[in-house]
Amino acid sequence: MAATKQVNIAIIGAGGVGKCFLSQLEALSAKRPTSKLNLCYISTSKKALFNDEYTLNAGNILQDLAASTKAPLSLPQVADYLSVSPSKVVLVDNTSSQDVADNYPVFLSRGISIVTPNKKAFSGSYRLWQDIFTAASNSGAKVYHESSVGAGLPVISTLKDLVDTGDEVTKIEGVFSGTMSFLFNSFAPVEGSGGNWSAEVKKAKELGYTEPDPRDDLNGLDVARKLTILARLAGLPVESPTSFPVQSLIPKELESVSSGDEFLQRLPEFDSQMEETKAAAEKEGKVVRFVGSIDVASKAVKVGLEKFDKSHPIAALKGSDNIISFYTKRYGSNPLIIQGAGAGGEVTAMGVTSDLLKVLSQIS
Amino acid sequence: MAATKQVNIAIIGAGGVGKCFLSQLEALSAKRPTSKLNLCYISTSKKALFNDEYTLNAGNILQDLAASTKAPLSLPQVADYLSVSPSKVVLVDNTSSQDVADNYPVFLSRGISIVTPNKKAFSGSYRLWQDIFTAASNSGAKVYHESSVGAGLPVISTLKDLVDTGDEVTKIEGVFSGTMSFLFNSFAPVEGSGGNWSAEVKKAKELGYTEPDPRDDLNGLDVARKLTILARLAGLPVESPTSFPVQSLIPKELESVSSGDEFLQRLPEFDSQMEETKAAAEKEGKVVRFVGSIDVASKAVKVGLEKFDKSHPIAALKGSDNIISFYTKRYGSNPLIIQGAGAGGEVTAMGVTSDLLKVLSQIS
Repeated sequence: MAATKQVNIAIIGAGGVGKCFLSQLEALSAKRPTSKLNLCYISTSKKALFNDEYTLNAGNILQDLAASTKAPLSLPQVADYLSVSPSKVVLVDNTSSQDVADNYPVFLSRGISIVTPNKKAFSGSYRLWQDIFTAASNSGAKVYHESSVGAGLPVISTLKDLVDTGDEVTKIEGVFSGTMSFLFNSFAPVEGSGGNWSAEVKKAKELGYTEPDPRDDLNGLDVARKLTILARLAGLPVESPTSFPVQSLIPKELESVSSGDEFLQRLPEFDSQMEETKAAAEKEGKVVRFVGSIDVASKAVKVGLEKFDKSHPIAALKGSDNIISFYTKRYGSNPLIIQGAGAGGEVTAMGVTSDLLKVLSQIS
Repeated sequence: MAATKQVNIAIIGAGGVGKCFLSQLEALSAKRPTSKLNLCYISTSKKALFNDEYTLNAGNILQDLAASTKAPLSLPQVADYLSVSPSKVVLVDNTSSQDVADNYPVFLSRGISIVTPNKKAFSGSYRLWQDIFTAASNSGAKVYHESSVGAGLPVISTLKDLVDTGDEVTKIEGVFSGTMSFLFNSFAPVEGSGGNWSAEVKKAKELGYTEPDPRDDLNGLDVARKLTILARLAGLPVESPTSFPVQSLIPKELESVSSGDEFLQRLPEFDSQMEETKAAAEKEGKVVRFVGSIDVASKAVKVGLEKFDKSHPIAALKGSDNIISFYTKRYGSNPLIIQGAGAGGEVTAMGVTSDLLKVLSQIS
């Protein structure tokens, strides 16, 4: 058996995705006793576990963390702690924190590899994007973020493979939000007439498919962030997720109401607007969907409502699935399509775990 | 910039896929001057280029090869030559040769990594499969074969990621042959009535979508080989591509006719059989498709005709596209789906090139 060096794993964040990742990591370590994955640091926003030996007791991490009396280190302190680790280190950022993201260049420049589902680092300013990849390239540290788009679906790895092997990506189009997918598949189904818009939003919230305030989904920013990431990977230097047209589905009058509950209460007043949009599509034999698209040649990135033939794969999507179509020179008129659940703790953590395995194969 | 060691590349095969791979490799080397990819050996079945310096003149490889007076080394000689190379070596097998495949364990055990679209090594005897992965595991050499199923589509990498991260794959189903896809999308389209079976086969052959003798597609063996590979990756120790039910679409009476041309000439006599199959599906509001499926729990692998609702993604496939659905515990009722061109020189070579990049990231 080829020798495998020990790798130290540091984790920031133990929420929904973080918990799923921990259990996947545990299963992984059990399955590959030779891979010597060693957890050396874990923190939430309030607590942390770490020690001078860089070795945590792997048995009951979450219980130990809850019982810990240590506060988390500051991010520069985390970098200091990890950069003198006796083994190579992978930092797993399971937060959606801009603060942590802003520190990636520091971690990477000190040789600490990063895997994360956190969109903020890759969809913030273009300057941060450049700093991240320059730091990684200079130090040889790795940075993987498959789950920042489409959760565990192989979206980013596929786009990278297309670009790296010299294909010419001409267009990327798809449904990038599980929430928007669920809403429009119910509101404007291919067969039948669907419910009222406001009723569908309420139902989605009750089923846990939206953020606590549904406006955080309906403003389109989540989709805009994902499009920013893909556009940059396709070679477009997109400045930020607000530097291209993004259609918000929040009625102007409800943008500033104080709570998500009040928003939901007043949303029915605006049902007729969405009903008109649906009817206009129906008149052409089409259905309306909330999509993002990147036209690489014209450098046009946009997010918003579009009409699709009922036989189009985007129209035929089910549940809260995502679908991403890559149109390229090699693939011709029929795109390469990836489809499936694009949200959820387990599948998001899966993207993080498979990224971790890729990093391990390169550094250990 | 992190230092990158030189890697020597040896190539066997310079046919359709091989030529596309060579041009992708050339583009790659031009784009990444620091990666120091060095071509040290190339051969066809008749000729070869190599020298004691392990460095070929990269300018006009195909012309130089055509002009070469050297015969190819025997496979054990290739292994000898490469195993004393001054740099690490990746062997790119762009053939579909069983002979080359049978020698993978030898190459791997001597530290030579392999990337290939050749199905034979991974769909032959289960013993060969075990020998290959044991040799790789012992020496640390890498073996990647993305293009052995679905050409450049991320099928094998996705299945590996699912398994490696601890998901439970319950079922894999799909259309795995571009030829079969084209035939059935034309013969039994979702809209309209389609042509005669024999006429569609003839058309497919004229368009270059079939093997020279179409029976080599219609016997189902190509699909059976792909299913064997996926089933093994999903954990089933499938003995060979003939150890599970495979439906051949060659009428018994035409199995032994001497040529593909005679086969095509006589095929219309059997159109009524296929017409009945189509009509039976139509009666249920369905269409017939040639699919492969793996039920992991019941260990049932099969290849043949199945009926699908017209709204099913398999029914809605276009052109000669492949579609592969992974049903897993994490993904629940809606599968993870990969769809797109599953054949063709450029996309097959793309899978080989992206595999090469993965190996390089691990060994250089």
